Amino acid sequence: MKIAVDAMSGDNAPEEIVKGCIKALKTTTATLVLVGDEKSIKTELDKYDYDKTKVEIVHTTEEITMNDAPVAAIRSKKDSSMVVGLNLVKKKEVDGFVCAGNTGALLAGGTLIVGRIKGVERAALPVLIPTKRGYTLLIDCGANMDSKPSYLHQFAHIGMIYMKEFMGVQSPKVGLINVGAEEEKGNELTKETFKLLRNDKKVRFIGNVEARDIPNGKADVLVCDAFVGNVILKFMEGFGTWVFGMLKFEFKRNLKTKLSYLLMKDGIGRIKNKFYYEDKGGAPLLGVKGIVLKTHGNAKEAEICSTILQAQGFVENDLINKITARFEQTK
Amino acid sequence: MKIAVDAMSGDNAPEEIVKGCIKALKTTTATLVLVGDEKSIKTELDKYDYDKTKVEIVHTTEEITMNDAPVAAIRSKKDSSMVVGLNLVKKKEVDGFVCAGNTGALLAGGTLIVGRIKGVERAALPVLIPTKRGYTLLIDCGANMDSKPSYLHQFAHIGMIYMKEFMGVQSPKVGLINVGAEEEKGNELTKETFKLLRNDKKVRFIGNVEARDIPNGKADVLVCDAFVGNVILKFMEGFGTWVFGMLKFEFKRNLKTKLSYLLMKDGIGRIKNKFYYEDKGGAPLLGVKGIVLKTHGNAKEAEICSTILQAQGFVENDLINKITARFEQTK
Repeated sequence: MKIAVDAMSGDNAPEEIVKGCIKALKTTTATLVLVGDEKSIKTELDKYDYDKTKVEIVHTTEEITMNDAPVAAIRSKKDSSMVVGLNLVKKKEVDGFVCAGNTGALLAGGTLIVGRIKGVERAALPVLIPTKRGYTLLIDCGANMDSKPSYLHQFAHIGMIYMKEFMGVQSPKVGLINVGAEEEKGNELTKETFKLLRNDKKVRFIGNVEARDIPNGKADVLVCDAFVGNVILKFMEGFGTWVFGMLKFEFKRNLKTKLSYLLMKDGIGRIKNKFYYEDKGGAPLLGVKGIVLKTHGNAKEAEICSTILQAQGFVENDLINKITARFEQTK
Repeated sequence: MKIAVDAMSGDNAPEEIVKGCIKALKTTTATLVLVGDEKSIKTELDKYDYDKTKVEIVHTTEEITMNDAPVAAIRSKKDSSMVVGLNLVKKKEVDGFVCAGNTGALLAGGTLIVGRIKGVERAALPVLIPTKRGYTLLIDCGANMDSKPSYLHQFAHIGMIYMKEFMGVQSPKVGLINVGAEEEKGNELTKETFKLLRNDKKVRFIGNVEARDIPNGKADVLVCDAFVGNVILKFMEGFGTWVFGMLKFEFKRNLKTKLSYLLMKDGIGRIKNKFYYEDKGGAPLLGVKGIVLKTHGNAKEAEICSTILQAQGFVENDLINKITARFEQTK
C-alpha cells in the first residue's frame, strides 16, 4: 500500500507534514510518497531516524497557495504538489492522498483529475462532529455551496456507508438539518430533500433535525448543503473556543478560582477532549474514484499522522468499491 | 400608549402571559390590551393586585396552535387572538403587539394583515446574540427561508437602524455570514449580496464573516438568510446547553469537584448570564407597518415582561417611522 502526502500544503509545510509522516511511519504498514520540493523534503527528513525503505519522494516544482482560484490553479499548475498527488491517485500509483492545502482546489482537483464515481452527481466533504452519544457525520461541510435535493439524497447514502464501515454503526440513522421538526418546514432544498429521503426505503430516515438537537446525537448521519454544514462546523469551533476562553479567564481570576481549577482539572480535560480531537483525522472527499483526504490548513504532526492512518483504514476497508457498489445498486 | 398581548399564545398561556403582564404593569406607562378568552384571562388576572385602569381585555373565541399551517390559519381563524391582535395594530388601536405563538403564522399575519413598509420586499425576524464585545444583531433568523440578495441588502439597512436606535451603536458595522473571508467565497446568494453591500455607500460593510468569528463580535449587524440564521441561533442554544450540562456533570462528580464548584460559582454564573438573557426581550418582525414582537413559545413571566417593555421602547423611539424614512431615502 502506498499513501501520498502533499508535503508543501498548509500553513506548516513542510516541517509539520514531514513530522507527521515520520510519526505515522512508526505504525503504518504503508509506504509514504512525499510529494513536493525534493530538497526541502530531504532537509526535513534528515532530522529524523526512520525506515528509508518506506519513504519515496516525488519532486514537484510548483505549489497551489491558499489564495489561488481553485479551478484555474488545478488547470494551470500542472507540476504542483497537489495536482501531481491527485494524478498519482488517478493512475493508481498510490492508494490514497493526504493534503492540507487549498480546500477549493482539492475539491475541484478531486473531481477534475480523479473523477466522480458513476452515479454520484457531486462529491461531498463530510466531517465527524462530537455529540452526547459519540460522533455524527455532518455531510456536506464544504464541497457544494448550492446543492440540489438529489445531491443531499446521495450524501445520505455516502454517509451511511462511512458510518457503517468506519464507525461500526450497523444501521445508521439519517437526519436532515432543518429549521423545524415538521415535514413542511424549511427552504425549497430541504422540503424536496425530505421527500426523497422519506421515500427511499434504503435510508433509515429519522426526519428533520433542528440545529439545537445536533448535540443530542440522535442521527448518525446529518445531511445538509455545504454552506450550512460549514457554518455549523465553524460556529462550533468559534463558540467552543469562546466558552473555554471565558472559563479559563474565570478560573484565573483569583486564588480561590485557581484552586477551583486544580480540583476540576480532570473534568475540564474530559470536556475539552470531546471537542479537540486532532487524532480523529481529516475529512475525506467522498464520491470520487480514489481516496483523497483533506486536513486542516493549520494541521500539525498529530493530525497529519492520524489522517495518514485514516487513509490506510479506508484502503483496507475498500471504501471506494463499497461506495461504487452502492451507486450501482441504487440505479 | 397601548400594547396588545396575545394571552392565548405559547406553551404557558394564559398563566405566564398574564403573569408577565402584571410584572410589566409595575414599570410600564402603557395600557396593556390582553387579547384572548375573557374568562380565562380574568381568572388569571384575579390572582393579582394591579392597576385596573391600565388593563383592557379584547375577547376572542379562537386560537392559532403551533401545528396550524401559517397562511391558512391567518385566513381562516378570523377571531383568533393572533389575528385580532394584528388587526388592532393595523387599525392603530394599539401601538404594538406581543405574541408567543406560532412563528410562521405571526410572520404571515404580520405581512398579510399589518402589511409591509413601502420599499421593503420582505420583513425579517432579527435576534440579538451575545458576543465577546456585547451583542450582534443576526438578521434574518426566521422569516425568509429562500432569500434573494436584495432582501439581505435591505436587512442590512433595517439592522443598522435597530442597532443605532436601540443599542446605541452610532455607526453600526455590517458583516455577511459566509464560508470564507474572500469575496468570491460562498453560495450564489452570498456572492451577489456581497456586491450589493460593498457598493452601497450607506452601509459600513466589513465583508464576509465566517461562523467561527461570530463570537468575536466584530460586526454589529450580521446578515444571512433565515435558514442559516435559524441554524446558528438554535445550534448556539443546543451546543451551549450541552457544554453547560457537561460542566454541571463534572462539577457534581465527587466531593473535590463539588468544592471546586463552590469556589467558581460566581464565575460560572457570569458565563451563564452571557447566554441566558430572558430579560433581553423578543424578536421584532421588522419591515412591517407596525410593532409586532415574537417571544419564545416557552416564554415565561420574565420574558413576556421584557418583551412588553421592549415594545414600549420601540414605540417611544418611533421605530416604524425611522425604517419608513430610510426606505424612502434609499429609493
